[in-house]
Formats: sequence, structure tokens, C-alpha cells
Amino acid sequence: MRDIGYYNGKTGPIDEMTVPMNDRALYFGDGIYDATFGLDGKVFLLEDHVERFYGNLERVGIVPYCTRQELGELLGRLLGQVDGELCFLYWQTSRGVAPRNHAFPREGKGSLYITVKPVEFPDLKKRIGLSSTEDTRFLHCDIKTLNLLPAVMAAQKAQEEGCQECVFHRGEVVTECSHSNISILKDGVLRTHPLDRYILPGIARKHLLMAAVRRNIPIDERPFTMDELRQADEVLVTSSSKLCLVAGQLEGRPVGGRVPELVEALQGDLLEELYRYVGRL
Amino acid sequence: MRDIGYYNGKTGPIDEMTVPMNDRALYFGDGIYDATFGLDGKVFLLEDHVERFYGNLERVGIVPYCTRQELGELLGRLLGQVDGELCFLYWQTSRGVAPRNHAFPREGKGSLYITVKPVEFPDLKKRIGLSSTEDTRFLHCDIKTLNLLPAVMAAQKAQEEGCQECVFHRGEVVTECSHSNISILKDGVLRTHPLDRYILPGIARKHLLMAAVRRNIPIDERPFTMDELRQADEVLVTSSSKLCLVAGQLEGRPVGGRVPELVEALQGDLLEELYRYVGRL
Repeated sequence: MRDIGYYNGKTGPIDEMTVPMNDRALYFGDGIYDATFGLDGKVFLLEDHVERFYGNLERVGIVPYCTRQELGELLGRLLGQVDGELCFLYWQTSRGVAPRNHAFPREGKGSLYITVKPVEFPDLKKRIGLSSTEDTRFLHCDIKTLNLLPAVMAAQKAQEEGCQECVFHRGEVVTECSHSNISILKDGVLRTHPLDRYILPGIARKHLLMAAVRRNIPIDERPFTMDELRQADEVLVTSSSKLCLVAGQLEGRPVGGRVPELVEALQGDLLEELYRYVGRL
Repeated sequence: MRDIGYYNGKTGPIDEMTVPMNDRALYFGDGIYDATFGLDGKVFLLEDHVERFYGNLERVGIVPYCTRQELGELLGRLLGQVDGELCFLYWQTSRGVAPRNHAFPREGKGSLYITVKPVEFPDLKKRIGLSSTEDTRFLHCDIKTLNLLPAVMAAQKAQEEGCQECVFHRGEVVTECSHSNISILKDGVLRTHPLDRYILPGIARKHLLMAAVRRNIPIDERPFTMDELRQADEVLVTSSSKLCLVAGQLEGRPVGGRVPELVEALQGDLLEELYRYVGRL
């Protein structure tokens, strides 16, 4: 198939799939999501993503639709039905289908919603442009919820300014981007915001840090400022949809570009991990 | 009909209505909503609600599905199809139907989603219990968006503690409740949080203030603290779904109850306004 949508046991082309009007995702954004690549029939870093997903469901009190193992098998099965070398798998679970009422329904489990579609390999060589905006989001940015309007507005700001991502900052402190984490290389050290309620614990971020450790690059998990971002040797933007991009511009001015060989090495590590995971290496 | 759901031109019983999997409300909470009573075929305070709704759509850059007048007529038409003396009308517009991508689709208008269902008259005499929680929401609480997970969690906390609403406070400062505004009467003055990015500009709040002005009750739109809430002569909780409730308990302890005749007078004013609006008076 060209792509596939799944909702609570039904499947079909995404364009033809529908969801009940009373799904709590629709009117409360009351749900959790996760996403990753699929390549050669394998769901990349499935364990990491499923672990985070179930952990998030538990934090907001949503009853999973199925077990972790069933979800993993289902994702693999759906991936197998879609044409295309590289696919992007997205899944979410809302608190279920019920008449609109803020407090939870007494019974019932979450709804499971999945889309799988082919995507292009991200172009890791192309340096991206970064916009920036004040981070006015809530204090639960560590939970991957469907409450994404500020992320949408920031991503739109980036696009309108001809950029690929938008950097959030709380005052002068950089937190993350609209749908990526952000790290800098400075004087040989990889610096990135610590895991707290201000950023999502990105899985690409984690694997970037692991790659750095393997290369004996020191890691400094302390917040950095917009000014430190501007002065960075390199700026890395990680996400499950693009792995690890590198910035060439920030707010219309050149940024980074001082240790391109190190960037290339780290990007290569992440790509190699993908190929190794799916059995190409 | 028992109830009615509407989505982009289609209608049916709410339980049978569906929405495309690619509606941006479902995966981003990328939409705006509003709600009010319908009584005797009239949509209560339609102008106020439609004005706020279109203003909010504009603030987040969503293209309305139809004109204000068309929306008003549609709401009235749907209301006319539902049995029941008092109905609750809820409507939302998401940024439309498109493949998931944070930045906006270049074309296309928002989706219109409406539900109308019969409800009981709120019992204004019964004093409610209030729970409380730290307000960790984003800094756009003045926009009626579908990003409501913190409101859902707070309402659930209230319910689990046997309460009807949950008071949000940023540090010691009271902002509003999970789906209501909150005001206090103290020494003859009506005090309520000013209109800023921390609270929704509630329409019931506005009409409560108007009623107070008509009664020559001084209004003080300055933030008040949790301690001032505990010491209030009366605590009023206003919303479009319950008009104006009065609290009897806060965090398990008695609160208010010192000027019940004034509460009853203000509640009477709001009810009278409803009856006058629909032509019963």
C-alpha cells in the first residue's frame, strides 16, 4: 500500500480512515504519541520508543490499548504492508472514546491510532536554518503529549522565515526546538539541556550522547544561553524524524561550521546505528 | 433527535459521527473551541461566543470554516433538531485536514465540529467543593485552545478528591479553575484575576462583572492569593456550562458562606439574563 492508517483494530489508506467524534484526542488533546523510522521491515529503536510511550501513558493515567509486545508486533505488521524503502511510523493513544467531560471516564481503555508512510532519507549534509522564539509552553515538555499548538506556531514561524526549525528559549536559556532537541559543540565538549520538565527526553538526543561517549567527547548536560548558541562551534538538531541535522544559520546569521568533520562523524555514527539495527551492516 | 453531531457539513447522532484521521485537532490539538447553552431554540449569548471564537481563530492563524453569521445560523438550526429543554452547544475549528506536519498547510480552511446535547439545569444553590493544584499550564491561557491536558488532569484531581472544580494557582497567586473562572467577594468588593495570558476571558465572568456593576458592587480586577481565597466572604466559580456556582469547601475546609444573599442575587441576575435572552421574561 501507498500508506496505512490504523485505528482501534481497523486499517485502510490514511486518507480514508476516520475516528469517532468522541475520541478525547479530538477535543482535549488528551493523549500521548511517539514516532520512529521503519527500514527493511524493522522498527528502528522500537524498545526505546515503546518504553517512553508506555511511561508517558502511565504518567498521565491513560490505560494502554494493548501490551508493549502487541504494539511492537502491530507496528511491524503495518510497516510490512507499506511500499517504500524508508517509512515513518507515528502512533498515539488518547484516553479513549467518551462524551466530552474533563474528568476521566470511569472505565475503558485508550484508543490506538497509527500511521505508516514512506519518507525520504533526511539529508544530513545540508545545513539548516534556525529561527527562534520565546518558550511559552507548559511545564510538562518532558511528556510527549498531543498538546502541540505552541510547537505548531513555532514551526510555522520557522517556515515563514525560510528556516527548518525554531529554537525555544525561556528568557535567555535555550530549551529545545519545536520538534527536536538541540545541542552544541564548543571547545570539544557536547553541551545540551539536562533532562527536566522543559525538554522532551529525545531518543535521538540519547543516541547522540551515546555516540559522543563512544568517541570520548565530554558531555555537559547544563542549560546554555542563546548567546552561547550563537557562539557554538557547531549546532546539532536531533529528532526521531531527521536523526541529526546541523545548523548553518541562526536568526539569519551564520552559525557553527567550525568542526564539520566532528559533526560528520557523529552523524555517521547515528546512521550506522540505523543500518546496524535493521541488519544492513 | 437525542443529540446531534456536525462535522464539515455532515450531521448525525454524536455516537455515529466520525472525523478524518488527518484532522489536525487529533494529533496536534491544533484548534479553537467555544461553548454555550441553548434554550427555547436560542443560542445564549451567541454574539459574545462567536466574537471570542473568531478572535481566537485569528490569533492562531486558523481560517474559519464559514462566516460568523453562517455559524450562528447553523448552531440555531442544529439546536432546533435536538429534544430537551436546555441544551449544551459545543463547537471547535481545527486548522483542517492534512498530513501531519507541524507547519501549516499552504491552503485550505479549518474544519468545523459541533455537538449539541441536552443537559440538566445547573443547580446553583448547591455549594461546591474546590480542590487546588499548581498552575503549570502554558502562557496562552487566554486563548480557548484544544490543548487541555493540564485542565483534564486538574479536573480529574478534583473529582478524585470529591470536589467539583480545581483551583489553579501560580505559586500563591490564584489564576482560574480547570474549566471555570474564579472570583471572590470580600468586604463588599468583587475581586477577580485581571484579563491577561494566565486566564480565559470567560463570558460568564464578564456577565458576572456586569451584574456586579449594575448592583453598585465595586470590582477589583487584581490577582488574589490562595490565602485570600481561603479568607473570602464568598467564592464564585463562573463558566458557560454552569453560569455561576458558589463554593462551600476549599481543600476540605469550609470556605465562604458569609454573604449568601449577595451570591443568590448575583446568580439570580445571571439566570434572569438567560431567561430574558431567550424571551421567557
